[in-house]
Amino acid sequence: MAAPVTVYGPVISPAVARVAACLLEKDVPFQIEPVDMSKGKHKSPSFLKLQPFGQVPAFKDHLTTVFESRAICRYICDQYADRGNQALFGKKEDGAVGRAAIEQWIESEGQSFNPPSLAIIFQLAFAPMMGRTTDLAVVGQNEAKLAKVLDVYDQRLGESQYFAGDDFSLADLVHLPNADFLVNRTNKAGLITERKNLARWWDDVSARPAWKKVTEMQSAPRPS
Amino acid sequence: MAAPVTVYGPVISPAVARVAACLLEKDVPFQIEPVDMSKGKHKSPSFLKLQPFGQVPAFKDHLTTVFESRAICRYICDQYADRGNQALFGKKEDGAVGRAAIEQWIESEGQSFNPPSLAIIFQLAFAPMMGRTTDLAVVGQNEAKLAKVLDVYDQRLGESQYFAGDDFSLADLVHLPNADFLVNRTNKAGLITERKNLARWWDDVSARPAWKKVTEMQSAPRPS
Repeated sequence: MAAPVTVYGPVISPAVARVAACLLEKDVPFQIEPVDMSKGKHKSPSFLKLQPFGQVPAFKDHLTTVFESRAICRYICDQYADRGNQALFGKKEDGAVGRAAIEQWIESEGQSFNPPSLAIIFQLAFAPMMGRTTDLAVVGQNEAKLAKVLDVYDQRLGESQYFAGDDFSLADLVHLPNADFLVNRTNKAGLITERKNLARWWDDVSARPAWKKVTEMQSAPRPS
Repeated sequence: MAAPVTVYGPVISPAVARVAACLLEKDVPFQIEPVDMSKGKHKSPSFLKLQPFGQVPAFKDHLTTVFESRAICRYICDQYADRGNQALFGKKEDGAVGRAAIEQWIESEGQSFNPPSLAIIFQLAFAPMMGRTTDLAVVGQNEAKLAKVLDVYDQRLGESQYFAGDDFSLADLVHLPNADFLVNRTNKAGLITERKNLARWWDDVSARPAWKKVTEMQSAPRPS
């Protein structure tokens, strides 16, 4: 029997949650190997072989290892093409053009949405968990940057149901972890819920069974 | 005759240069449509239809439009698979595993290398061109961040000739624009040239005909 698919890192991490959501959409069974970052396990020699920057997540299946959450998601879609959600990384018949429509919004997430949203999440959700002081100036600067990105998103989601067109895809999925933190674990939910098209999109995508399962995993008590 | 492939944006922009390098590697003829950012043309309604964030580059061929430089590079490789460099986005026989080996380093570039290197380039190369004061504190902070990334890169390039293995690929190509600026247009060349494996890699990849052609385009007088 093939070794199971393993995702390394705590699922509360947005980047780990991104990969878990992809595996659930693709109906690929997997196990989570939590990496105890409070004990510096992400900087251990064995982990650095999987992820040379000492970050989570890392990924392993019977064929290879991969790091960087968005690279892992692409790999899962390509390697497990016949499983689960068949439109997640573009329908075969849509070819390179269909995939590009998805890729441009995955890149927008990585380049434009993630930096300010992650900075806000860090300050308002993770810093308190870690006993650190929240820097409200950082929150304010990043809220201004994020608002401009979300204005573009709201316009886009007024033109089509999902970022890349009529189907839920990786373009939507990559946004879920940070969006969920903003809405459910900070006082900045309005950034999403007060923009009409973005709010409609959020109600839809956050209700998907795969994402609901991820949030259950995030809320479950950590194994002792 | 099909409409020509068009790249929108000034080729001095690192992200525009990234796309030009990819088209040259793939031997796809193209034209550059400079977007006069000093006149705000990147915020015009017609440009925002191509690139909703008002950034360069944007891309158009006879089939579609795409934005975000790394998304455009992936599209060029997929759509023009039979042209030019056949290994650029992974050899067919290497399948999803080969592509993942490339993707994880494209993502490292976008997430880890680009932010600090672009900040340094902006302060040391673009700010003077624009008559703005260089903020040396920003340079110092980002140099410290970039050094950590380059230490990982130097180790990686001690294990294999290129980021993803034995072949030059998009994983290498996406790094070229910022690396060239650092080496040739700032006083921070040592970040790359004083790391043994990275220096060996840089001598190799920067001598590729496609990249040399891009730097010629960048140095050419702008059309009046």
